[in-house]
Amino acid sequence: MSRFLLNLPKTFKTNLSLIKKYSTLNSGAIEHLGSIVGSNNYSITEAVRTHHAKDESLHEEAHPDVVLFPQNTEQISKILQFCNKNKIPAIPYGAGSGFEGGINAVKGGVSIDTSKYMNNILQVNVEDFDCWVDAGVTRKQLNNYLKDTGLWFPIDPGADACIGGMCSTSASGTNAVRFGTMRENVLNLECVLADGTVIGTAGLKARSRKNVAGYNLTNLMVGSEGTLGVITKVSLKLFPQPETIMGAVAPFPDVATAVQSTVEIMQTGLQIARIEFLDEKSIQANNIYNKMNLDETPTLFLEFHGSKGTVDQQAEVAMEICKSNSCKEFQWATDPEERNRLWHARHNSWFAFKSIHPNRKAISTDVCVPISKLPEVLVQTKKDIEEFNLKTMIVGHVGDGNFHTFISLDTTNKEEMKNYYAYSEKLVRHAINVEGTCTGEHGIGLGKMKYMEEQFGKPSVDAMRIIKKALDPNNILNPGKIF
Amino acid sequence: MSRFLLNLPKTFKTNLSLIKKYSTLNSGAIEHLGSIVGSNNYSITEAVRTHHAKDESLHEEAHPDVVLFPQNTEQISKILQFCNKNKIPAIPYGAGSGFEGGINAVKGGVSIDTSKYMNNILQVNVEDFDCWVDAGVTRKQLNNYLKDTGLWFPIDPGADACIGGMCSTSASGTNAVRFGTMRENVLNLECVLADGTVIGTAGLKARSRKNVAGYNLTNLMVGSEGTLGVITKVSLKLFPQPETIMGAVAPFPDVATAVQSTVEIMQTGLQIARIEFLDEKSIQANNIYNKMNLDETPTLFLEFHGSKGTVDQQAEVAMEICKSNSCKEFQWATDPEERNRLWHARHNSWFAFKSIHPNRKAISTDVCVPISKLPEVLVQTKKDIEEFNLKTMIVGHVGDGNFHTFISLDTTNKEEMKNYYAYSEKLVRHAINVEGTCTGEHGIGLGKMKYMEEQFGKPSVDAMRIIKKALDPNNILNPGKIF
Repeated sequence: MSRFLLNLPKTFKTNLSLIKKYSTLNSGAIEHLGSIVGSNNYSITEAVRTHHAKDESLHEEAHPDVVLFPQNTEQISKILQFCNKNKIPAIPYGAGSGFEGGINAVKGGVSIDTSKYMNNILQVNVEDFDCWVDAGVTRKQLNNYLKDTGLWFPIDPGADACIGGMCSTSASGTNAVRFGTMRENVLNLECVLADGTVIGTAGLKARSRKNVAGYNLTNLMVGSEGTLGVITKVSLKLFPQPETIMGAVAPFPDVATAVQSTVEIMQTGLQIARIEFLDEKSIQANNIYNKMNLDETPTLFLEFHGSKGTVDQQAEVAMEICKSNSCKEFQWATDPEERNRLWHARHNSWFAFKSIHPNRKAISTDVCVPISKLPEVLVQTKKDIEEFNLKTMIVGHVGDGNFHTFISLDTTNKEEMKNYYAYSEKLVRHAINVEGTCTGEHGIGLGKMKYMEEQFGKPSVDAMRIIKKALDPNNILNPGKIF
Repeated sequence: MSRFLLNLPKTFKTNLSLIKKYSTLNSGAIEHLGSIVGSNNYSITEAVRTHHAKDESLHEEAHPDVVLFPQNTEQISKILQFCNKNKIPAIPYGAGSGFEGGINAVKGGVSIDTSKYMNNILQVNVEDFDCWVDAGVTRKQLNNYLKDTGLWFPIDPGADACIGGMCSTSASGTNAVRFGTMRENVLNLECVLADGTVIGTAGLKARSRKNVAGYNLTNLMVGSEGTLGVITKVSLKLFPQPETIMGAVAPFPDVATAVQSTVEIMQTGLQIARIEFLDEKSIQANNIYNKMNLDETPTLFLEFHGSKGTVDQQAEVAMEICKSNSCKEFQWATDPEERNRLWHARHNSWFAFKSIHPNRKAISTDVCVPISKLPEVLVQTKKDIEEFNLKTMIVGHVGDGNFHTFISLDTTNKEEMKNYYAYSEKLVRHAINVEGTCTGEHGIGLGKMKYMEEQFGKPSVDAMRIIKKALDPNNILNPGKIF
């Protein structure tokens, strides 16, 4: 309970009727927080709070008491100082495109939305292949801005997520197999800690490619899902736009042959830029949603980057491997339009899936395993989907051993929900048992908390709890997540 | 002061004469620690303690009271439980090849040497390109073991360091420009925390390429220089041995043109495997020490990996850039013998430098800057070396903006030492001012402690101190380092 509430000023006139009963915040606290960001930059309306109450996941809405739209780091520092003093939960909010309930305000409190004002591209160092951006910048915004520089930022989780949110979950996506995840591509972060302290995780200004001074606070913040600090500015690695890009589509008779081809392609060590698996149902959904005409069978989408010579060579090797695994017809997609249609389709898989299952809830699973275990796990997954009689499709960043099942649910159907939970649990346990992880890119949020000790054992999770308690003793930063 | 000392058992017969006066440990503590590892596996002899009293740096010897050679993780856990209970410092020791005094026992205590017994390659998963090794395995030992698998571990700090030590400093070296540093190549760690708790930083068994479950304890331990835990086992990424390797030597008229070529090569985005700078004095030393006949002028050593076609293409581009920057003669080194001689020379630079300055102390600086700042910083560095009248040579992993000055010192010459300290300080401040770091790969140890707050500001360093205090409340793990 907020100490602030215990010393309530007597003269407040604010209309409290808009604040739901379960609100733990009084008008005085809200007025003070509002005064930090300015009267037009906070909201307690039902609509705005509902918009900030949940992400794309199944987890039920949990409303913040107030949504703040700060304009700068200094305001966020003042907000956290106040929240820390008064034990008010504070949840950073970017695009709300998460899959594990990471932004749901399960203990109420303050949602800090950086997307409205803190969305500027601050510095692009073309010669050094790096940049500084506000946390609220989205990846598409950044890449549009970079178009004419000859550079791009490859990390691509599908949704047009905010860079700050992508740091919080250590996002990755279709290009990770070549360019790595956020972990490998963040050079420095400006963050605000629970007590309002502003830090530079790699140094005040450092952006050198290598930096081993002190503890790696950058990669402690990356993936901490807003529980250790509020990320305000990000320094990112950038990459030269590829000289040549070649795409290909490889349809297979079954899951096993498609995945076996992936394993063999990765084992050649050739630097493929993207290698994505879509099962027959994904292709079906994409054909309908994107008006395409692909063979409705397990399929790999591949992409190669580099000089013309390199690309041709790599594509040749990949084609040979696919054909030796009974690929039906290895189709090139060289012209940009054709290629863009393919990747547009891949990125729209989520929306395609939703559209063919209207009036139902769609969710996505996320496990990652050593690539040699992928055939076993994916084949078993297909069996389980049958057994549990679920409406699904499977897409996967299979080059990393990471895949997702999209599942369409009637959340009012007890039987169906029971099957979904049983399926999901079986999938995660299988991944952990084959030396994989319960999450390859979505994070823990609310959804995977129960698997933390299974994957890590209690001592490791306790070590994380010790760090959380040390940096956020009042547990105000996104409380109720990860542990 | 150890609580253990306050309740001294009365009946010890151990001969204390071997323990130096400054020892804070009594015979009872030493006998107990010895009993954990076995009577033949600990030593209090002057010779062994001196061997564990310092690394390659200038920092004066600081003897541990006892050196332990544990056989397994369980013994290390028992050692730390005892040390923690009795507030006895514990310093992990690998190969002692560090450059910043990281292993010097500045508060006495226990040196835990993993190199004698904990040096087994535990598991190589060829299909997944990963392995598990004991912390005491050296990088050369690992690569010899991998020879016939078609895989290799590219991180290469020059010295034949232990993998555990390479994790502790987040080592890198000549291949980092292509393969990254330890940060990007450790999948999981088994470590023992200060209280003896054994954890898996990425999960009990996880070794998937991607893993975003919970806090990134792996990269918190990597680079923490033995102050947060004792690393006992490491899971590493491995890479396919390159199909074709081509080396080249490019001599330039001056530093500026050599470095400008590096900047331009990096800016093409071509995936060069190695690009190393050696100044004229380095070439001179290498010619003498390795009986070579290279043009004694600022020079780049380059290496390209991949298919024959890719390698040829990349080398062509690099050659064009070097020639356009007045490279005197771009010399290919295609046959393995010739190439190995070159890289053998590069790796022997440190020993070459020592040999041409006998009876003097050699030390190495280590800064890293954004690559666009490299010409300015290196040219200024050359001027400063003249001004301060120092015996030096410069080698650099210039593709990452990281370089070293080797300096030969008569440590009894006050004037020379004064100049060295002034030079070193000016170099580090210059690096920090151009948005670089005080250390690119050697770490902080004792040598760079005073620059931490300059680079980070006090709040960031305080955040590190908070983490240290939370995980090691009695400050037993490598005390007196980093902060």
